[in-house]
Amino acid sequence: MAELPHCDTLQLNLEAGVLHVTLNRPDCRNAMSLAMVNELRQVLASVKQNTGVRALVLRGAGGHFCAGGDIKDMASARSAGSKAYRELNRAFGSLLEQAQNVPQVVIAVLEGAVLGGGFGLACISDIAIAAESSKFGLPETTLGVIPAQIAPFVVKRIGLTQARRLALTGARFDGAEALRLGLVHYCEAEVETRLSEVLGQVRQCAPNANAQTKALLLATEEEPLEALLDGAAEQFAAAVTGPEGAEGTMAFMQKRPPKWAE
Amino acid sequence: MAELPHCDTLQLNLEAGVLHVTLNRPDCRNAMSLAMVNELRQVLASVKQNTGVRALVLRGAGGHFCAGGDIKDMASARSAGSKAYRELNRAFGSLLEQAQNVPQVVIAVLEGAVLGGGFGLACISDIAIAAESSKFGLPETTLGVIPAQIAPFVVKRIGLTQARRLALTGARFDGAEALRLGLVHYCEAEVETRLSEVLGQVRQCAPNANAQTKALLLATEEEPLEALLDGAAEQFAAAVTGPEGAEGTMAFMQKRPPKWAE
Amino acid sequence: MAELPHCDTLQLNLEAGVLHVTLNRPDCRNAMSLAMVNELRQVLASVKQNTGVRALVLRGAGGHFCAGGDIKDMASARSAGSKAYRELNRAFGSLLEQAQNVPQVVIAVLEGAVLGGGFGLACISDIAIAAESSKFGLPETTLGVIPAQIAPFVVKRIGLTQARRLALTGARFDGAEALRLGLVHYCEAEVETRLSEVLGQVRQCAPNANAQTKALLLATEEEPLEALLDGAAEQFAAAVTGPEGAEGTMAFMQKRPPKWAE
Repeated sequence: MAELPHCDTLQLNLEAGVLHVTLNRPDCRNAMSLAMVNELRQVLASVKQNTGVRALVLRGAGGHFCAGGDIKDMASARSAGSKAYRELNRAFGSLLEQAQNVPQVVIAVLEGAVLGGGFGLACISDIAIAAESSKFGLPETTLGVIPAQIAPFVVKRIGLTQARRLALTGARFDGAEALRLGLVHYCEAEVETRLSEVLGQVRQCAPNANAQTKALLLATEEEPLEALLDGAAEQFAAAVTGPEGAEGTMAFMQKRPPKWAE
Repeated sequence: MAELPHCDTLQLNLEAGVLHVTLNRPDCRNAMSLAMVNELRQVLASVKQNTGVRALVLRGAGGHFCAGGDIKDMASARSAGSKAYRELNRAFGSLLEQAQNVPQVVIAVLEGAVLGGGFGLACISDIAIAAESSKFGLPETTLGVIPAQIAPFVVKRIGLTQARRLALTGARFDGAEALRLGLVHYCEAEVETRLSEVLGQVRQCAPNANAQTKALLLATEEEPLEALLDGAAEQFAAAVTGPEGAEGTMAFMQKRPPKWAE
Repeated sequence: MAELPHCDTLQLNLEAGVLHVTLNRPDCRNAMSLAMVNELRQVLASVKQNTGVRALVLRGAGGHFCAGGDIKDMASARSAGSKAYRELNRAFGSLLEQAQNVPQVVIAVLEGAVLGGGFGLACISDIAIAAESSKFGLPETTLGVIPAQIAPFVVKRIGLTQARRLALTGARFDGAEALRLGLVHYCEAEVETRLSEVLGQVRQCAPNANAQTKALLLATEEEPLEALLDGAAEQFAAAVTGPEGAEGTMAFMQKRPPKWAE
């Protein structure tokens, strides 16, 4: 496996095929600095080709997920002018695009502040587990700015109907409401038990099959149906005749867990 | 500000940056006549460029929102022939397109009958507050006709899965079910308190930032992602260096409300 | 009406304009064999032009809806090679496309196993009624393969956010959860009463108007808005001046049920 990059703003911990990525700037509720954006992008690039990593767990240190953009970066962009703001902003969008398309299963554990850019990052997860007490919101327009890079990811996540109310009111809400809105999949008093359960489920799934399935699901909203189904039939034939399909079928008939689930 | 047009079928009341638009044909549960469609379009056109108006509140007089198309208009179209029906129908679709894209935050207060065309109009709101006792439904096919202009707005609002059941059964449902289906954001025994709360939230948001954000959210479902994110980064840079961004940031640091929230 | 085809794997029962189609391989929980795919396609083709059939009720014999793909077909494809797998897989996708677009109202009654291909088939229904005790899931990747043909139908049905969790974990869930996810419209201890109610509602709706409305709803996600609304206005004018529109309007004014509801 390509070595993981050294990171100042992230804690990395690879354990049993799961890479735990912890946003680690607890003094500012893990506000998303340009340095953090860059380190996240390096980590995602390094695991992209690595099928030994089957899942990423994304969370924040110190009881918060991420409170949004970093004020210090904003201040230094101010002195550097409008172009610096544009690039700072766009870099975060590039991170979201990259994270959305990573082949691993991305699990977000959402505690405390999940605001602005943090909200956007939550929107690219495959599975999101919220603490009951977490606080979600899109406060951008209350500050005179706009949720520029995250808007498309929020609409894709929860639909236009819910996104428009949240973005045009800056309303805050908790984990139970996040569940009701379909932003997260679970709302828990205590998140660790659910995280273990979900990781256990992911472990039952063949790694390559999961990566292909994730790409296929994301493609359904972009590609015409006929072409998509034709390509998917090719992929199905390759999967079922390949090593994972052979092992999965045999394990099923032998009533034993497949190798990837051991 | 461009003066508001004189209206026979609507009551208009502009108060503290909020234009209250009341469908005012209570004798026929505010059925949507061609005159009402035209007056609504004139009102929307007159406020479109007016950043002094930050929100529209859309509701009906006499305890009903809108019971659908007007039967008298239908009768006179019948004598005028098929072309008249087509134009009558299409005019309502044009109203919906225009209302969907108005830069103000549109808040619908839904009481009593919210049927057919009234259901369609509810679907373009940014925030919808339903009375518990309101009655929603798409009765078109029970009358031998089709929900022609509203179909795309209903699907956009609640998704294909829910839209198909409602449109193919003519089923009626109440405010609690409307909340469950994601058609509205709130279901209340008494709507006024919630309306005040929502207007208070909107007032916290910078008017231009809100208008840009609304346009951006609507664009996410039309434009390719890369181009959208590039443009959004430009808009972000302009917003943060513009007057609202400056005021918002300063107010935040000075721990005072921004001017637009006073 | 074109005669219904003779079927070995399906039970067909046409009663009062409703065609009851029962997957009838209870020994293998109605696993979707190639023979069953082909017979379903023949049935759909035979009813497509038949406006005397207003609704299809799709369900399974022996307490299960459908447990997914058939293992024996898979085994014989294995000996025939990769091309056979591809064609077997793609045939099921063609069935889903055809079933999605049939003009009748499709009602799925979901009991017992609703897995893999059975899950996909449920996703094309207009109205889905689940038994509380039914078991839903996408187990493909736990077997080393992928939900190839059903992926786009699942995303269209419940959205990307929910689809990705289900497909990447293989999680099983019951009827109440299916209702919460928006996969089904009803969850019942006992399904027959609800089925009768829904069929009664469909009977209130004019058959051609319903068929046109269904096609219109499906088109909203494919066609540009302006063109769609223009065409819909034409359809509206034709419907209101046609026999169903005339009967519907007259019945409404005479406070009697329209002929199609008798």
